[in-house]
Amino acid sequence: MATRPQLTPLLRRLVRPRTSLSRQSTVQQQLPCHPVRCFSSSRPRLFQTTAVACKGQFTSETYPDIQRDKRFAQLTQEHVAFFRNLLGTDSAIIDGVTSDAADDIEPFNSDWMRKYRGHCKLVLKPGSTDEVSKILKYCNDNMLAVVPQGGNTGLVGGSVPVFDEIVVNMSRMNQIIEFDEVSGTLVAEAGCILEGADHFLASKGYIFPLDLGAKGSCHIGGNLATNAGGLRLLRYGSLHGTVLGIEVVLADGTVVDDLCKLRKNNTGYDLKQLFIGAEGTIGIITKVSIQCPQRSAAQNVAFFGLESFDKVQQAFREAKGQLSEILSAFELMDEGSQALVRQVTNNKRPLEDQYPFYCLIETSGSNADHDSEKLQAFLEDVMEKGVVADGTLAQDETQYRSLWAWREGITEALGHLGGVYKYDVSIPIKELYQLVEDTRARVDAAGLLGDTDEYPVRAVVGYGHMGDGNLHLNVSTRRFDERVEKVLEPFVYEWIAERQGSISAEHGLGLMKKKYIGYSRNPTMVGLMRNIKNTFDPKGILNPYKYL
Amino acid sequence: MATRPQLTPLLRRLVRPRTSLSRQSTVQQQLPCHPVRCFSSSRPRLFQTTAVACKGQFTSETYPDIQRDKRFAQLTQEHVAFFRNLLGTDSAIIDGVTSDAADDIEPFNSDWMRKYRGHCKLVLKPGSTDEVSKILKYCNDNMLAVVPQGGNTGLVGGSVPVFDEIVVNMSRMNQIIEFDEVSGTLVAEAGCILEGADHFLASKGYIFPLDLGAKGSCHIGGNLATNAGGLRLLRYGSLHGTVLGIEVVLADGTVVDDLCKLRKNNTGYDLKQLFIGAEGTIGIITKVSIQCPQRSAAQNVAFFGLESFDKVQQAFREAKGQLSEILSAFELMDEGSQALVRQVTNNKRPLEDQYPFYCLIETSGSNADHDSEKLQAFLEDVMEKGVVADGTLAQDETQYRSLWAWREGITEALGHLGGVYKYDVSIPIKELYQLVEDTRARVDAAGLLGDTDEYPVRAVVGYGHMGDGNLHLNVSTRRFDERVEKVLEPFVYEWIAERQGSISAEHGLGLMKKKYIGYSRNPTMVGLMRNIKNTFDPKGILNPYKYL
Repeated sequence: MATRPQLTPLLRRLVRPRTSLSRQSTVQQQLPCHPVRCFSSSRPRLFQTTAVACKGQFTSETYPDIQRDKRFAQLTQEHVAFFRNLLGTDSAIIDGVTSDAADDIEPFNSDWMRKYRGHCKLVLKPGSTDEVSKILKYCNDNMLAVVPQGGNTGLVGGSVPVFDEIVVNMSRMNQIIEFDEVSGTLVAEAGCILEGADHFLASKGYIFPLDLGAKGSCHIGGNLATNAGGLRLLRYGSLHGTVLGIEVVLADGTVVDDLCKLRKNNTGYDLKQLFIGAEGTIGIITKVSIQCPQRSAAQNVAFFGLESFDKVQQAFREAKGQLSEILSAFELMDEGSQALVRQVTNNKRPLEDQYPFYCLIETSGSNADHDSEKLQAFLEDVMEKGVVADGTLAQDETQYRSLWAWREGITEALGHLGGVYKYDVSIPIKELYQLVEDTRARVDAAGLLGDTDEYPVRAVVGYGHMGDGNLHLNVSTRRFDERVEKVLEPFVYEWIAERQGSISAEHGLGLMKKKYIGYSRNPTMVGLMRNIKNTFDPKGILNPYKYL
Repeated sequence: MATRPQLTPLLRRLVRPRTSLSRQSTVQQQLPCHPVRCFSSSRPRLFQTTAVACKGQFTSETYPDIQRDKRFAQLTQEHVAFFRNLLGTDSAIIDGVTSDAADDIEPFNSDWMRKYRGHCKLVLKPGSTDEVSKILKYCNDNMLAVVPQGGNTGLVGGSVPVFDEIVVNMSRMNQIIEFDEVSGTLVAEAGCILEGADHFLASKGYIFPLDLGAKGSCHIGGNLATNAGGLRLLRYGSLHGTVLGIEVVLADGTVVDDLCKLRKNNTGYDLKQLFIGAEGTIGIITKVSIQCPQRSAAQNVAFFGLESFDKVQQAFREAKGQLSEILSAFELMDEGSQALVRQVTNNKRPLEDQYPFYCLIETSGSNADHDSEKLQAFLEDVMEKGVVADGTLAQDETQYRSLWAWREGITEALGHLGGVYKYDVSIPIKELYQLVEDTRARVDAAGLLGDTDEYPVRAVVGYGHMGDGNLHLNVSTRRFDERVEKVLEPFVYEWIAERQGSISAEHGLGLMKKKYIGYSRNPTMVGLMRNIKNTFDPKGILNPYKYL
């Protein structure tokens, strides 16, 4: 073996990786207390404001072109009486039809960003599949529209009503049903909170094959319904591969028991796949069976600065090759995004100098020494080759969390600075960052981008799950200005469509992107999707006004 | 750390693992030359004979209850003229309608086991998606039934005609279209042979995320159509997770371009999933886009003897925990299966003593030293705990192949001994082997099992992909005896249904299991599947008489 050249200072920082860490963003605690702001806009679809105390505008006002479907019945006392009798307990129903329950219903009517707000007057919380079935049968028979709702953490307005749809909230169906410690198969009710399920699995030495920022609130049923991607996809793959079975209730109340616990089952069309990512438009998922991997004993995080996006791609390729089976995350952040986190948090940056790009690499493996050695060899290699300009490694749990916060804290930091136009897109990796550059140039050319208050746009930044080809393009603004939206749209969608990318990588269509599906799916496919919708929900009562 | 006890002799055999091996069964070369045998039976659905030179019975004779669907037109000279004109070249059509081409058509009419044989008179080999589209449109307009055919390596009669269906063979569409070396995304035509695609990927440092015995003949389009499982599923997951996109032609000739190259794309129902495992009943897959992992630099194989199935489960659990990210196969073989391989091949057994169970463990990783160290620690642990009774490790490529041959050679060895009733089933792991014991006891109680020629059954053995809960139950017979089938069926299917297992883990339904889907899927699901079939192929021209 050739003699290794002198190690750089970076590599001397290498230490034994820590074991059994839990990652958590620490930005929240460090954020200064900004005044709450609400933007008002007639078309605020892509305009994200921070979570605020004030009530948002009604979706029916901000989307005046959406009309209530007159085929749907109005809720009556008689309907409420049926549901009250069915559910038996007062805690399972919030009745704003026969009484004033507006304040109690508000959290179910609005999404967490206060971008979408419905006129729902009845919330039902079934406690069993049988109750879900009876609710839907009755709604289908009586032409009552329904919005299935999990943890209500979505970003695209899919989980709240537009008009007076009944909310069927799954929070009471939150039991772990069984876990097989040999195979790693978990069976649970759809209303289990993701973090709760993961904690349960941790006690068994296993891990839920999905991780995302909203884990403390989101439901696993909702994760399936939206085909959530998140942070572990690079390692464990998508839910289409890990979900073994589901139980789902169709619009007419039919219970489809496909709660298979087997890894292999080639007996007919794999129907469950249709419900993964269907956003509650063809059925309500009531139970989930999923294959869980063993929990890794050791985790490492490294944070790099790189001089160009070409070098980011090189680093990704080397990481895949050299870290191979232990690579569990490869995240990208540009300088713009990091500067904004710094501005908001005032935290010391991980590296001394600034670079156009940063990567966060996480490894998860069964042997801490081996992982450390692999990571060290990788670091030596990429630094020798000049792929990476500088870097640092987490040496303890605090540093591990702190490095992750520079990635996971971006969304929150941007939100605290003002309004944000957010695009969650998939693009072939080699062109991934070009979208940010082209968008920035376009906004700049329109005279909208600058450092001072006269410019509506503060920054155009990019970050995301590099390993999945998933970019979050964020346009941070100082105030609402309709010129910004005109410059951004349909430009961004057209740019993506030209490169056969996806306008929704992991957030779904919901209400926000209903009109834009044509940029990512051809008319033939949309036609087939409509056939599927009509087959499973012929009266169209499930999550109307959205998705297709 | 506690002092390790003295290592057993097994562990002293541990050596540095070899790198970049290709595994191949060597049983074939070592098999004695047995006379070719053909069993005759009126119901030979589950009765597998070895590949033979003689032509098998027609499926229409062995399944007299299946009648040709009179709605389908008979092939005419005019039809042939249309196809000849469309395909342009003589090599793309085998015409048994206007000429005698029986011998040329025979390989397309029969499966490789000669269990199924159709009356097809026309084979078409389109060279492009456009040609597939025009063929299907014409067939749909003229009510001509079609059998899509890949490498024709299936085990359940799905890829050959029953009557005079036109065979659309995909072998001419065999081009690699593109490969992205950063993301690992391969796009290829459906008629690519799996091994060819894997060789191409090997040259790029990648691997096809699927491996199976028929890789030298099977097509990747057929792999998708049958949702093939095979040897790498434990590591890389199912095709539902790794396939990124497909191009498929529907029964009416509509081309569905869902050839997505993105890892994440949440824009509407994931239609491609329906075609994965649909066995050519709702469309013909013409192109495939698939996520390929980096090829591992090092591979190891260990072979163990174990005293009980409880200990096999313990070993599996320990292997998952300790070998974790490098575990790539965990295969199970019982003593009966190994005794038969020994009988046929006369090879020296890997271990000195005999045990009721054997496991083959394979690791694949990026660092040979690390893998070797992990494997050594694992071996020490399971031997200290008394989980494993004895074992051996491959020390070079010859030994690696030789150990794999004791697992991969079972099917072939059994075939050489006579007829075999084969069941490919999924069962929750803790009861996996109970099926073999219960079946053996039942056959024995019926007086059919014994060591001498007076007994029709030679052995009831079990082996399979333990890691996937996938058992191959094989009943080796000396001759056809209808009492055997009566003892086996519906007993086996009922036994599986009671445990919510699957009657088809990875081989599919085809013609063989069409009638038995009810043992693994409830009437609600079968009803929904029929809706899907009617939506995509309303005239029912695609692969009739099979699947549902």
